[in-house]
Amino acid sequence: MATSLLDPSEIRGALPLLAFTQGDPAGIGPEILLEMLARSTPEERPYHPLLIAERAALEVLRTAVPDAPWDQIVYLDAVTSAADLPDDPEAIPVLDPFGGAGAGSRDRTVRPGAPGPADAEGALAALDRGIELATSGVASALVTCPLSKDTIHRHVLPGFVGHTDYLAEKAGLRRYGRDYLMAFLAPSLRVALLSTHLPLRDALDKVTETAIREALACLDRHAPGSDSSEHPKIAVAGLNPHAGEGGLLGEEEWRSIAPAIEAAREDGLDVHGPESPDSLFARALRGEFDWVLSMYHDQGLIAVKTAAFGTATNCTLGLPYLRTSVDHGTAYGIAGRGIADPGPLERVVETTLELLRRGRGS
Amino acid sequence: MATSLLDPSEIRGALPLLAFTQGDPAGIGPEILLEMLARSTPEERPYHPLLIAERAALEVLRTAVPDAPWDQIVYLDAVTSAADLPDDPEAIPVLDPFGGAGAGSRDRTVRPGAPGPADAEGALAALDRGIELATSGVASALVTCPLSKDTIHRHVLPGFVGHTDYLAEKAGLRRYGRDYLMAFLAPSLRVALLSTHLPLRDALDKVTETAIREALACLDRHAPGSDSSEHPKIAVAGLNPHAGEGGLLGEEEWRSIAPAIEAAREDGLDVHGPESPDSLFARALRGEFDWVLSMYHDQGLIAVKTAAFGTATNCTLGLPYLRTSVDHGTAYGIAGRGIADPGPLERVVETTLELLRRGRGS
Repeated sequence: MATSLLDPSEIRGALPLLAFTQGDPAGIGPEILLEMLARSTPEERPYHPLLIAERAALEVLRTAVPDAPWDQIVYLDAVTSAADLPDDPEAIPVLDPFGGAGAGSRDRTVRPGAPGPADAEGALAALDRGIELATSGVASALVTCPLSKDTIHRHVLPGFVGHTDYLAEKAGLRRYGRDYLMAFLAPSLRVALLSTHLPLRDALDKVTETAIREALACLDRHAPGSDSSEHPKIAVAGLNPHAGEGGLLGEEEWRSIAPAIEAAREDGLDVHGPESPDSLFARALRGEFDWVLSMYHDQGLIAVKTAAFGTATNCTLGLPYLRTSVDHGTAYGIAGRGIADPGPLERVVETTLELLRRGRGS
Repeated sequence: MATSLLDPSEIRGALPLLAFTQGDPAGIGPEILLEMLARSTPEERPYHPLLIAERAALEVLRTAVPDAPWDQIVYLDAVTSAADLPDDPEAIPVLDPFGGAGAGSRDRTVRPGAPGPADAEGALAALDRGIELATSGVASALVTCPLSKDTIHRHVLPGFVGHTDYLAEKAGLRRYGRDYLMAFLAPSLRVALLSTHLPLRDALDKVTETAIREALACLDRHAPGSDSSEHPKIAVAGLNPHAGEGGLLGEEEWRSIAPAIEAAREDGLDVHGPESPDSLFARALRGEFDWVLSMYHDQGLIAVKTAAFGTATNCTLGLPYLRTSVDHGTAYGIAGRGIADPGPLERVVETTLELLRRGRGS
């Protein structure tokens, strides 16, 4: 399946509005947003950007990112419809995550690289505004910058384990795998995960026939970027070396994975496997499959990051809107120094626009 | 660490003799050997080839590989020293795996793609001759073509589980990990495996402090291709997502892996980690580490095959001689049709010669 490049002219007539969250204000999120905008003119962007960021998080970067379009930035307290956006097509609207209500958000000092409780609050507030904009349809897609799970868990919302589960819960989606999936889109490689952040021992226990059937149905229903057929061609990875080698190297393949695949095929899905995990991702990269369902986090992520370090897009499947993200972290160690690379974010934007164009983003 | 290319002129004065086993005679081993030789003249080869193959396995390919140097082939019944080899530098000596004793090896018919008991015998006999030639020093290195573990297990040697363990046993090496290691060398990526062909559940139980300490010592002692320092710079992968994220996602990192790393460092080794598995291999590919010790088969092999499908060299560390292999299988489905790709074998030969040149092959 070829990865066609987006032709801006095709959608310039109705440019989508992409809502970008700042992520952790003390991380590199605000910086890569500004750097990305510095690299292109409004005419070169086949989308309208809307930043959801604290003024303090941006202004602290004036020295670090001197080329950012500072003069075009328009700070807003609320955006409830497209009518709230500036008329000037060159303006870059920045929505205050606290909606202008929290005066503290205006006056505080953001210290890049040194996150505190206020940064956790800002990250979560920006995410909440992003959810509202995407859910209401004002934004065509939600693009999130990296935040610190741990900081939010400690300071603001105990039990917060990351964007994906938070977004799902807010959308009323209840069970990972059945209702929503974490997926990664790299050039020529698309991978969904049967389970996410679990100790490997616990992840093994999630490899059940039911879980795989549910995940295959969820992936088939929500998979974006599959333009080769009605049903995307999905390969299911085995769990054990050589996919168990006929039972010699493990029993999960014949006990759980193969029956789930058979059931999915009877339901009309285009599913293959269980495939030998070590060579499967290379085969998918060559175009043999549209998607891979991987049996645990690292099985899929080792392949994605080895094949496409820094160029993969994290995408939550099953939400009522399109949500994408970079696959790197807050990078506190380099934040605020003007050296953070906006390249991965630019790749995410390209992928997001392509998914919007195909209309299978949700 | 740069992968320097071999300059044939540097070693042409004393060309190494590479012993190649046929692998399974009904697989693509004989074919890729002939195809490889067809692609170069003797002057272009910075080594002397010695094929250990049944005459019947080669002759059946006259139509499939018409360009092979058929006229240069010299069939031999025994090679016990270099004096037994033809004087003609253009000759391609082919050693009968049965030493001329088994008349059946001469008269039988090899049917590519349809392996039987005689093929299992031939594969194992060729391997035994190869071990003798490498152990005695007649051959500078042993390069093995793919065989079928299952065919040998069923027909000739019950319990045969593959080249690596067989070679180790013949060399008097007793314990995997402590005495020998399976390793893969790809361009810019070198990976050793803490365990090999085990169900993933069982592989988890092999992640112990002792096993990791032993494997690190073995890798440090035998690692080839590390020219950056006395001790190769080794990264140890974590077992769990994000290397356990400080204990939140699993305990093997702090319970077993980190203590083993600490002990190895106290022994003077240059060891780092536990590193987050998903991004580690991309970092190693960029040159941050000489070697990665992976905690289970697919952790390492997914990275190797995704980064370098078909170009990786399997290398057994700890043997008294250098042994390398392609990382693909017998490919019965295409054997004998003249379409098997000798490219991976050519990469293995390049890697083998480079390891010989560096003198750290064993």
